[in-house]
Amino acid sequence: MTAKKRTTLGRPATIAAPRETILANAAKLFAERGFEGASLQDVAAAVGISKAAVYHYFPTKQVIYDEIVIDLLKGLRQHVVERLDKSSDFGDQLRQLMLAHAEFFESHYTEFVTLLHGFGGLTRNIDRGQVNARDEYEKLLRQLMTDAKESGALTVGDPASVTRGILSMLNWMARWYTPGGRMSARQIAEEYFELIYNGLRPR
Amino acid sequence: MTAKKRTTLGRPATIAAPRETILANAAKLFAERGFEGASLQDVAAAVGISKAAVYHYFPTKQVIYDEIVIDLLKGLRQHVVERLDKSSDFGDQLRQLMLAHAEFFESHYTEFVTLLHGFGGLTRNIDRGQVNARDEYEKLLRQLMTDAKESGALTVGDPASVTRGILSMLNWMARWYTPGGRMSARQIAEEYFELIYNGLRPR
Repeated sequence: MTAKKRTTLGRPATIAAPRETILANAAKLFAERGFEGASLQDVAAAVGISKAAVYHYFPTKQVIYDEIVIDLLKGLRQHVVERLDKSSDFGDQLRQLMLAHAEFFESHYTEFVTLLHGFGGLTRNIDRGQVNARDEYEKLLRQLMTDAKESGALTVGDPASVTRGILSMLNWMARWYTPGGRMSARQIAEEYFELIYNGLRPR
Repeated sequence: MTAKKRTTLGRPATIAAPRETILANAAKLFAERGFEGASLQDVAAAVGISKAAVYHYFPTKQVIYDEIVIDLLKGLRQHVVERLDKSSDFGDQLRQLMLAHAEFFESHYTEFVTLLHGFGGLTRNIDRGQVNARDEYEKLLRQLMTDAKESGALTVGDPASVTRGILSMLNWMARWYTPGGRMSARQIAEEYFELIYNGLRPR
């Protein structure tokens, strides 16, 4: 791999917002064809620039993937934080978080699908920035569940497991959700919240 | 693609249970390196047979992947059905299903990881057999939730959404679970059942 040495080589692209445009086009191609099914050449062609121009911004395809995921997870966290009303009770905050997550998923569907299948096997080293962005987001919900448990406001078993369970429901949507289908992502998240909050036990 | 024509070509392998051995080795390689990261040549080398011998059993790598997934989903369904006691109440049956699913996940971890990342993009046609095996499994739980709702024994919103939500929790484990970690898959499923059944609402 000599790609890394080429980071600062290649000619700058003559398009507007080249970095963002490359990332958006790459995400679309990865979502459609899978990470391995789309080459840097395909990305360059979709943007309408040369492969050398892509190299000017990103040394490898893997770096492009990592950037898409990091941007996505940071954006998700920011979107959710903005919609959380810390003065409302814990149940309401959980509902706000789940609905905001689903809204962001719906408006960034392509990137979430990319996130799902750029996972290149157990032996691949996952980019540190990606892990951090993921942890930062997960912490939001885990803290909420920990606080809710400590205050006795909600009946939380293991806050870490509850957090995993809730995020799993939302994350797996990237695998089966069809935009424009029977229910919006927000409606699905609403059903999930109902399930998580009230439970199935007869009442 | 001329690979399909080669189905009946290639020499039979001289090992025991060749079909099963090829599938098991392929699943391990796919899990470690990703679907695209492992070639048919790698699979042949891992089994210790020629690539031609692999072709004798499977025309393409995609067919191997599809067979792994179909076998896995059929095995999962069978394992769960055997552990369901239809005479117990709906809550207990849900618990039985979730724990049995987790047990099977734990003992077939490699194949579940393969299932997770052989997804080759939105534009790939998913094998019909795979879709059917998936639907058959999902039906088990959806029927349970539908019956529980109709009888009034459990407080189920939309049975399809509840089913999706529960399976999402279990499915996403393939993405983050580490065998031999803090909790077994069964313990995690127990926590998830607790959450789904009782809910977070103060009681």
